[in-house]
Amino acid sequence: MVLNQVTSMSDPSKDVLETFDNPYPQRDYVIDTVAPEFTSMCPKTGQPDFGTLTISYVADQKCYELKSLKHYLQQFRNHGAFYESVTNMILDDLVAVTEPRWMKIEAAFTPRGGIRTTVIVEHGKQP
Amino acid sequence: MVLNQVTSMSDPSKDVLETFDNPYPQRDYVIDTVAPEFTSMCPKTGQPDFGTLTISYVADQKCYELKSLKHYLQQFRNHGAFYESVTNMILDDLVAVTEPRWMKIEAAFTPRGGIRTTVIVEHGKQP
Amino acid sequence: MVLNQVTSMSDPSKDVLETFDNPYPQRDYVIDTVAPEFTSMCPKTGQPDFGTLTISYVADQKCYELKSLKHYLQQFRNHGAFYESVTNMILDDLVAVTEPRWMKIEAAFTPRGGIRTTVIVEHGKQP
Amino acid sequence: MVLNQVTSMSDPSKDVLETFDNPYPQRDYVIDTVAPEFTSMCPKTGQPDFGTLTISYVADQKCYELKSLKHYLQQFRNHGAFYESVTNMILDDLVAVTEPRWMKIEAAFTPRGGIRTTVIVEHGKQP
Amino acid sequence: MVLNQVTSMSDPSKDVLETFDNPYPQRDYVIDTVAPEFTSMCPKTGQPDFGTLTISYVADQKCYELKSLKHYLQQFRNHGAFYESVTNMILDDLVAVTEPRWMKIEAAFTPRGGIRTTVIVEHGKQP
Amino acid sequence: MVLNQVTSMSDPSKDVLETFDNPYPQRDYVIDTVAPEFTSMCPKTGQPDFGTLTISYVADQKCYELKSLKHYLQQFRNHGAFYESVTNMILDDLVAVTEPRWMKIEAAFTPRGGIRTTVIVEHGKQP
Amino acid sequence: MVLNQVTSMSDPSKDVLETFDNPYPQRDYVIDTVAPEFTSMCPKTGQPDFGTLTISYVADQKCYELKSLKHYLQQFRNHGAFYESVTNMILDDLVAVTEPRWMKIEAAFTPRGGIRTTVIVEHGKQP
Amino acid sequence: MVLNQVTSMSDPSKDVLETFDNPYPQRDYVIDTVAPEFTSMCPKTGQPDFGTLTISYVADQKCYELKSLKHYLQQFRNHGAFYESVTNMILDDLVAVTEPRWMKIEAAFTPRGGIRTTVIVEHGKQP
Amino acid sequence: MVLNQVTSMSDPSKDVLETFDNPYPQRDYVIDTVAPEFTSMCPKTGQPDFGTLTISYVADQKCYELKSLKHYLQQFRNHGAFYESVTNMILDDLVAVTEPRWMKIEAAFTPRGGIRTTVIVEHGKQP
Amino acid sequence: MVLNQVTSMSDPSKDVLETFDNPYPQRDYVIDTVAPEFTSMCPKTGQPDFGTLTISYVADQKCYELKSLKHYLQQFRNHGAFYESVTNMILDDLVAVTEPRWMKIEAAFTPRGGIRTTVIVEHGKQP
Repeated sequence: MVLNQVTSMSDPSKDVLETFDNPYPQRDYVIDTVAPEFTSMCPKTGQPDFGTLTISYVADQKCYELKSLKHYLQQFRNHGAFYESVTNMILDDLVAVTEPRWMKIEAAFTPRGGIRTTVIVEHGKQP
Repeated sequence: MVLNQVTSMSDPSKDVLETFDNPYPQRDYVIDTVAPEFTSMCPKTGQPDFGTLTISYVADQKCYELKSLKHYLQQFRNHGAFYESVTNMILDDLVAVTEPRWMKIEAAFTPRGGIRTTVIVEHGKQP
Repeated sequence: MVLNQVTSMSDPSKDVLETFDNPYPQRDYVIDTVAPEFTSMCPKTGQPDFGTLTISYVADQKCYELKSLKHYLQQFRNHGAFYESVTNMILDDLVAVTEPRWMKIEAAFTPRGGIRTTVIVEHGKQP
Repeated sequence: MVLNQVTSMSDPSKDVLETFDNPYPQRDYVIDTVAPEFTSMCPKTGQPDFGTLTISYVADQKCYELKSLKHYLQQFRNHGAFYESVTNMILDDLVAVTEPRWMKIEAAFTPRGGIRTTVIVEHGKQP
Repeated sequence: MVLNQVTSMSDPSKDVLETFDNPYPQRDYVIDTVAPEFTSMCPKTGQPDFGTLTISYVADQKCYELKSLKHYLQQFRNHGAFYESVTNMILDDLVAVTEPRWMKIEAAFTPRGGIRTTVIVEHGKQP
Repeated sequence: MVLNQVTSMSDPSKDVLETFDNPYPQRDYVIDTVAPEFTSMCPKTGQPDFGTLTISYVADQKCYELKSLKHYLQQFRNHGAFYESVTNMILDDLVAVTEPRWMKIEAAFTPRGGIRTTVIVEHGKQP
Repeated sequence: MVLNQVTSMSDPSKDVLETFDNPYPQRDYVIDTVAPEFTSMCPKTGQPDFGTLTISYVADQKCYELKSLKHYLQQFRNHGAFYESVTNMILDDLVAVTEPRWMKIEAAFTPRGGIRTTVIVEHGKQP
Repeated sequence: MVLNQVTSMSDPSKDVLETFDNPYPQRDYVIDTVAPEFTSMCPKTGQPDFGTLTISYVADQKCYELKSLKHYLQQFRNHGAFYESVTNMILDDLVAVTEPRWMKIEAAFTPRGGIRTTVIVEHGKQP
Repeated sequence: MVLNQVTSMSDPSKDVLETFDNPYPQRDYVIDTVAPEFTSMCPKTGQPDFGTLTISYVADQKCYELKSLKHYLQQFRNHGAFYESVTNMILDDLVAVTEPRWMKIEAAFTPRGGIRTTVIVEHGKQP
Repeated sequence: MVLNQVTSMSDPSKDVLETFDNPYPQRDYVIDTVAPEFTSMCPKTGQPDFGTLTISYVADQKCYELKSLKHYLQQFRNHGAFYESVTNMILDDLVAVTEPRWMKIEAAFTPRGGIRTTVIVEHGKQP
């Protein structure tokens, strides 16, 4: 059986991300989200990459909705992306959509050639 | 067998929280309480959520009594609540009842859809 | 907010369990299912109990469907049941519905009064 | 960027599996292979599944070549398959290609809905 | 403050143990009970000993009640007993009261003089 | 057998604590002592409590002798004490006897009712 | 300061081992003793060796006394002994003194030259 | 079979290191690379050493390419180098080639003679 | 600096293995040796492989000497060998030199392409 | 067999410590050395003590040579020393010989009487 829904050939888009109103904008508090099932394709070798994304942020007016975050990340499944680029791109997309007071992403990838890489990007300063 | 005592249909109330006099108010010291058996309901899907609450505080004149804290948290068993809201609400309730010099709650929820979330809220500054 | 869907006052029923045809009945093979979010009520104290169920079986003609298993187990959320009874009852229900060649359940409950209990029940002999 | 090499729309085929001559057919010995980066699609929900395959076998005349095994398993990336079916199918394919004296596969999948499943299939008896 | 209830000067007695009817006597199944807070006194040095008792049994007609087991074990708090004797004595008491089909106790004590000891006693054969 | 030496009915006293001269008073250095076998009685329920004390200090002229510390802590075995009080009391006693430049105690108690508590008290500032 | 008591220049002797009467000779039960602080000297290099001894036995009429076991093992501190010899010698000594129904020793030594060794010796068959 | 490609007798050279353009030079972000399969030769004893290198850096205009990093590190396989020298040398080489805003290397070597060593070197200050 | 002693271009030879007389040939006992620093070259890719060898045996008249075992294994450092072949070859060499009553080798290699392999070979039956 | 080389009756001396020139004095970098096989004698009880020393330092002109450090530490094997004294003494010796920019020693001893102690001493401030 071949599934239609995962063979979309277009680039990942932040349009699938949905937000809801931050229920406590009067307070600076941290939301940590760990997504251990991230996978994309290496553009150089055509081989799949696997990693764990840890996203931490202090929301301002908007929080991302978790199911839409999952769908957003699943768009990378058949998408070619280098570690450094994809982590920065995801930060840019999440910042654009949620406009947080602070956000940080740690992307820890599984070993390739016996070497493993983690990319850590940050937007703003933790309040 | 169907039990009466867990089917109260009202919202969680901080009225069940009891306090006792801080035995050493002259000293700033930290009390950590870990409650790994927190459970509530997802208002969107109607599915149960599970999590571990870590509450840290420096009491002023009042400490919360542990058994009453347990009963307070059990009120969420059949209560619908989003992660971000419920964590802030519990902090507000505990602050209102104990009026601490500082309090922080870390609520670590079990994975949903392969993604797990931790919400960290704080009241005041650790002395 | 008080949710309607979790306040059903009736006893747990195996009628919610659904099955699908075993795709390889010609082979004896083992399916392990771990459900770490089981919770029920202690009939004596009215306090919630928490545990992890590990169900292992060799299907004959029928496998249980996982989503229906989850709904079946969620019925115990507000149900009063002793450790030994509830574990045997779940085994009886799953055996009645799937008629397996062999089934075993290990139910590991969290500590009460500093003591933790695991109940291990088995139906038939592992082929 | 959208990659061509992962969008093959056909079913997984054992034809990509390559073998080499068992260098010590005169001795019964065990080869364990652990592939922690297995991923396929749930045919019911269209969501990706993730798992770790542990393949153990006693080769007769042929061993599978590891790079070809990796390519064989990557074919499931966009393929819809239930846990029980896919594990049995992979065993059938590897048995057909290598004709081993004994083979066993344990497929441990990550949690879905708070429940995790492991399927254990075996061909022949361990010598 | 000095408490009255723990200063009973008499020897531990199995009379505090209570039982309830085995809810599934028609099935041989295992109940594991782990009591990590066992403490007694060394009769030679007068120093406290600490240990973890793991009691496993297949009940016949009677199961021990957990709260009464806790009270039974607490009787050893100020009681002098050697490792080997106390483990055998507890097995004898539990066997006398519950008349099980099989019972086993592993008593793992914390290190003394850099050496730690575990005593493993068994009654009957596991069915 | 009932032992005489543990049935002293009086309150814990710091008089059993012995000290020796700090061998390097000219240097600020830290001594960590971990006592995992602390036990006292809950004054409310009459049930035993168990915990691990971690005592850290920078001595001035006097260090506490370890064997006398053990005897001091064993005095709490049959003594009723709340978590918050007993931790502060032990700090006060150790400070009175050793007059340290800095001292901190972390007392981590085992779970009661599914909830575990750690009390952290400090005297002075770590040099 | 140089201590007299550890500089005895003679070979280890089983004469320091003391026994006490097995309190339950009518029952076959297992006593496990773990001694993680064993140290001897390599006769080839003159360097100290370190290891953990795990002694398991079913006593007949005599049990070894733990303090005397500690003194027996401390005799090897300045004694030259190869791994294989010392483990067999300790088994012979303990068997000669306690005449057990069964005894087994696992001696796990720390790495030397990046390689670590465990020697496992057994007397009789476990009843 | 003796391989030609690893027997190059010359010293390690940074010329094999390749770089690519930092895709986000406008942002200070951290790249962590863990290489657990580093091996070199002890110049004193002629014995192989093994270690894990953790390289962290904030790139300026250039990132090192991972495959070329692997080849660079493999040059040390038959190269004699002391721990302190080799760690500083690798830092110098990577700094020369990538000109980062900040770089740090932790080199954790496996035990020799029961003692293990970690060398931590840093270039610049973490932004 | 380029070292001479590791650049021997010849194949590994069992001639470097030395033995000593089994000190207790009258007893069947097990010697486990774990060598976590094994490394060889992949003949296909020219890349280094890394693994942990666990060798277990019951000696007859001869034990291998550990330092000579280390030198024997170091011969593979620049030698090309497939996993399955090298493990069988080492077993053959050690059996030829020590003529044991039983021997088993587990060779666990680090991941390549996300897949890790363990080869388990055995000579004779464990007594 | 009784060995001569470990029975030296004199006090530990820093004269056995050798140094080599710091290969990168122009850079402040940290060297961590972990020695888990430290053992000395308790002067009070005559019993052996065991511990793990972690030595961290920033060298100025001189680094200690590891083999000589091992010999230096082995001198304490039959030497009587209290925890607090021996840790400070080792720091004084290493500082005298290497004259570092900064040095810190953590000495973690195994439990005695159920209590374990760690002594942390520091010379200078970490650059």
